[in-house]
Amino acid sequence: MPAKAGARTGRRSAKRDFPLSRVRYFLEPGPIVLVSSKWQGRTNIMTMGWHMVMAFSPSLVACLISSGNHSHDMIRGSGECVINLPTTELTEQVIGIGNSSGSEIDKFKEFGLTAEKASEVAAPLIRECHANFECRLHDEALISRYDVFVFEVVKAHARPEPKHPETLHYKGDGVFMVAGTVIDRSSLFRASML
Amino acid sequence: MPAKAGARTGRRSAKRDFPLSRVRYFLEPGPIVLVSSKWQGRTNIMTMGWHMVMAFSPSLVACLISSGNHSHDMIRGSGECVINLPTTELTEQVIGIGNSSGSEIDKFKEFGLTAEKASEVAAPLIRECHANFECRLHDEALISRYDVFVFEVVKAHARPEPKHPETLHYKGDGVFMVAGTVIDRSSLFRASML
Repeated sequence: MPAKAGARTGRRSAKRDFPLSRVRYFLEPGPIVLVSSKWQGRTNIMTMGWHMVMAFSPSLVACLISSGNHSHDMIRGSGECVINLPTTELTEQVIGIGNSSGSEIDKFKEFGLTAEKASEVAAPLIRECHANFECRLHDEALISRYDVFVFEVVKAHARPEPKHPETLHYKGDGVFMVAGTVIDRSSLFRASML
Repeated sequence: MPAKAGARTGRRSAKRDFPLSRVRYFLEPGPIVLVSSKWQGRTNIMTMGWHMVMAFSPSLVACLISSGNHSHDMIRGSGECVINLPTTELTEQVIGIGNSSGSEIDKFKEFGLTAEKASEVAAPLIRECHANFECRLHDEALISRYDVFVFEVVKAHARPEPKHPETLHYKGDGVFMVAGTVIDRSSLFRASML
């Protein structure tokens, strides 16, 4: 896997506040994400591929978290989570986390990830991820029907570099598409549609 | 834009039936899609970035279609649509369709796209797209609350080649990420998690 300079050398730019209304920039392209949670004194992480941006302001994101996941009850109970954006350097962790259960192991410890204190929620940020979106449960009405949690992103952090992180996009069957070339076609858009 | 051989030469493999339970293969990586509809004798197309796989069997997909879109009422009225998967060769059409309204123009005609008869729904397939997912409205309960349509994919068609089509993933502000390298990590998965 080719990696960006920062990943190869281990250098990473410090995270900065990221505008809540621009969360689509990271989530709309459809990356696999890591969802961290904290409930009753314990933390957990799950790998999640089924999510959808729903609104800019408030910044809403729908996430399907099956009741079969240990995280389901933790997030429902606490009403909070953090959506963390991993890149290719975390591929093995993404897979390992998705293939194990927080009912059996401490995933931060097992996968060598660093829990950092969030600003607005009790759930921890994953330091090694490119961006972190602190979420509060906005609407629980769709949970019992579809396991769909509607979250409001209440605080966002992102590294300013690289501008286009090498995110992972899951296709099923153990196969991922890695984020490729970026093309700017803004000149073809009506101003009101940007 | 580098293009795959098929796109460069204009040759395209014929579409085949695609298993409904594997629709995630195309949609979970988060591509921008074109949604075609037919209602009261007229067709339309919209560009859509906000969608989420919800289940394998039945094959359910949630789509956020704002009531500001001409397609909203057409799809709500007919209870059907087709989700079509464009690739980079259709970048200009994707943008043009997203920047115009079906209340003013015939989008198939305006953007030089071919409407093909679908098998299970009245809405047309877009021939030039890599894959087409015929959808019936499965649950309209979330439309009034969130403009979210839950569709069941009832028939799927896809070209067998290229295996990994060059899909477009929207980041906002007129910028797209193009599907990149594909990596197979199935050997790291527990069999039950594939």
